[in-house]
Amino acid sequence: MQLISSQMTGYIKKASWIRKMFEEGIKLKQEFGAENVHDFSLGNPDLPPPSIIKETLAELADEADQPFFLGYMPNFGYPDVRQRLAEEVSKEQGVEVPADSLVITCGAAGALNSVFRAVLEPGDEIITPAPFFVEYGFYADNHAAQLKPIPSKPLTFELDLDAIDAAINDKTRVVLINSPNNPTGAVYSREELEKLAAILEKHNAKRERPIFILSDEPYRFLAFDGVEVPSVLDIYRYSIVCSSFSKNLSMAGERVGYALINPAIEGKEVLMGAIIMSNRILGFVNAPALAQKLLGKALGSSVDVSIYDKRRKAMAEVLDNAGFNYTMPKGAFYFFPEAPGGDDVAFCATLQEEKILAVPGTGFGCPGYFRLAFCVGEDVILRAKDAFKRAMDKA
Amino acid sequence: MQLISSQMTGYIKKASWIRKMFEEGIKLKQEFGAENVHDFSLGNPDLPPPSIIKETLAELADEADQPFFLGYMPNFGYPDVRQRLAEEVSKEQGVEVPADSLVITCGAAGALNSVFRAVLEPGDEIITPAPFFVEYGFYADNHAAQLKPIPSKPLTFELDLDAIDAAINDKTRVVLINSPNNPTGAVYSREELEKLAAILEKHNAKRERPIFILSDEPYRFLAFDGVEVPSVLDIYRYSIVCSSFSKNLSMAGERVGYALINPAIEGKEVLMGAIIMSNRILGFVNAPALAQKLLGKALGSSVDVSIYDKRRKAMAEVLDNAGFNYTMPKGAFYFFPEAPGGDDVAFCATLQEEKILAVPGTGFGCPGYFRLAFCVGEDVILRAKDAFKRAMDKA
Repeated sequence: MQLISSQMTGYIKKASWIRKMFEEGIKLKQEFGAENVHDFSLGNPDLPPPSIIKETLAELADEADQPFFLGYMPNFGYPDVRQRLAEEVSKEQGVEVPADSLVITCGAAGALNSVFRAVLEPGDEIITPAPFFVEYGFYADNHAAQLKPIPSKPLTFELDLDAIDAAINDKTRVVLINSPNNPTGAVYSREELEKLAAILEKHNAKRERPIFILSDEPYRFLAFDGVEVPSVLDIYRYSIVCSSFSKNLSMAGERVGYALINPAIEGKEVLMGAIIMSNRILGFVNAPALAQKLLGKALGSSVDVSIYDKRRKAMAEVLDNAGFNYTMPKGAFYFFPEAPGGDDVAFCATLQEEKILAVPGTGFGCPGYFRLAFCVGEDVILRAKDAFKRAMDKA
Repeated sequence: MQLISSQMTGYIKKASWIRKMFEEGIKLKQEFGAENVHDFSLGNPDLPPPSIIKETLAELADEADQPFFLGYMPNFGYPDVRQRLAEEVSKEQGVEVPADSLVITCGAAGALNSVFRAVLEPGDEIITPAPFFVEYGFYADNHAAQLKPIPSKPLTFELDLDAIDAAINDKTRVVLINSPNNPTGAVYSREELEKLAAILEKHNAKRERPIFILSDEPYRFLAFDGVEVPSVLDIYRYSIVCSSFSKNLSMAGERVGYALINPAIEGKEVLMGAIIMSNRILGFVNAPALAQKLLGKALGSSVDVSIYDKRRKAMAEVLDNAGFNYTMPKGAFYFFPEAPGGDDVAFCATLQEEKILAVPGTGFGCPGYFRLAFCVGEDVILRAKDAFKRAMDKA
């Protein structure tokens, strides 16, 4: 009997190679011990949550015998936490964001899907620079939309603005960007974003349905060497920001984030109302109560960013030593070097022979590269030095 | 400019009457004080969480400075919590449920949507007895499916099995039931479910794609007078159970529940894999980490059910005194009486004149009735006695 849908059957078939690779990684760890495998495959932040999380949890325990302690709240979140969040994102974005431009969501994933549900018609297209976070393709499918990846400029991963311009048609509804970027570490400059905005404004002038920029920014806090992460809000009117607290508060499993619409959008109440309703009807209902209560106290705190910067430098040293070709990441916690020989899947297999786990660029819609996550101790990175060198020599 | 999709525009237009009613309720509270308004409109459990929640939160605070404390876990949930949950639901269902038949989800809403994403083709039909939880319609739309409500038998709200049989066609993929039922308080008997199973088996014999029974059971713990809530698992092979801890642990805002597939399904690994993947790609990713950790300790605990039973009797007394026509609820915390005069929206307006807030049956696809939730103190119920009488006299 056919138990699952045809689309789901296709997904499972397509994902089999990455599952196989993942299973081989597990086998390596079982055979040689986890401490002897250099695992750079996972973007699971390893820094402990800031101490305010521990303190707040202890305080919350005191209130946990009250009625409605974990009861329903408005679908947009606790009003006081929403207000605090508005103050915090106003600082981060450099734009005054009122609370009613915000909805607290189940992570950035919840935010992205709620925005899609609110604005997309079936058959709409979502342009995104490649490489891209693999889940974007599923999120598009969830809403019967089409993800249209546009390759970024080789190695620097700057936006290919001409290609984006050429890809826009009547069905284009969203340009989805992720900066600082997973998997490349690129941060789009103000100049790039202004040019992108000008392109979209040119198209909007001929349309009833504006093209949105949807900026997915969970790594905003993690930019290195003082690089600016410009806000799309003062660059382009039809902009929406999604983010999460998975990385800056090391709360990836807790599923809390937000969607923020540009307060400058005329008639923004309708858009906000639709996103809040989407958050409800998609089954998220609201962001988890405890996570929101933690945010109420922890907003403005962050894990120690300098630790990530040290790891970045250590990883650069390791890659330089082996002779890899890459652009130094400006933000986030990933390197995306060229795969020697050009076949990323084959080269990741070579890395596995040296007990290094990495993810092929093919998994991000960008063959010829591979991703290394530095959510591991500096010592783990440095320990892999010789292994990277050996893999390079084999390639 | 058109900011939102046409479907979303339609939703907002259609929901305007219920929003208006909700806003009038808020106005009443502002004018007369919340304590002078008899609010039976909300299914937000008012009992405090069991004491184990408070104790566990305090324990968790001690661990909250560890790396990965709130990090990612497998999409199906923490393996140890999943194992505990398997033991617990095995007891509840009276059927041996192994851990690998379970996925921990973001509430029952997350479970229902994950199951739908896994099994539905666009255009598929979902049969559900009316009245029904209004969100079911949106959940069907999320997956481009069609909700097909089949009216239940008047006043008793037993399944109309002939009507269900007649409604089944090639596109039918799911029969979605909710027992104990929101809004009616009905509990489907073993005999009813066995007849339903026989009907579906008859149809399955001619199909490649089985029809699933999806049983939404967040009120399973709340059945009165020792009534049996039969498990669909030993009645029908292609059965899936969804539930949440919103009601029995008073954790509605925390968003945690599960989906459980019948271990007797041949090839169930494929179905389970698809539901776990759906849970991920819909953007839930995983159930909130803290909620899962709480469950690990709190499974098997419950709010005090006898309090709900006392309220049920108090509400029956109040309704009898006024002369309403209703079936005594066998489970859950709702009454669904007939609206005197037949016009439920008009009668709910009459109730509002007496400062009673209720939800018209129209909101549940069942005009002619209205819903009263007894998530309020017994004193609040008894205090409304004269107001109900006056409303009845006016009707």
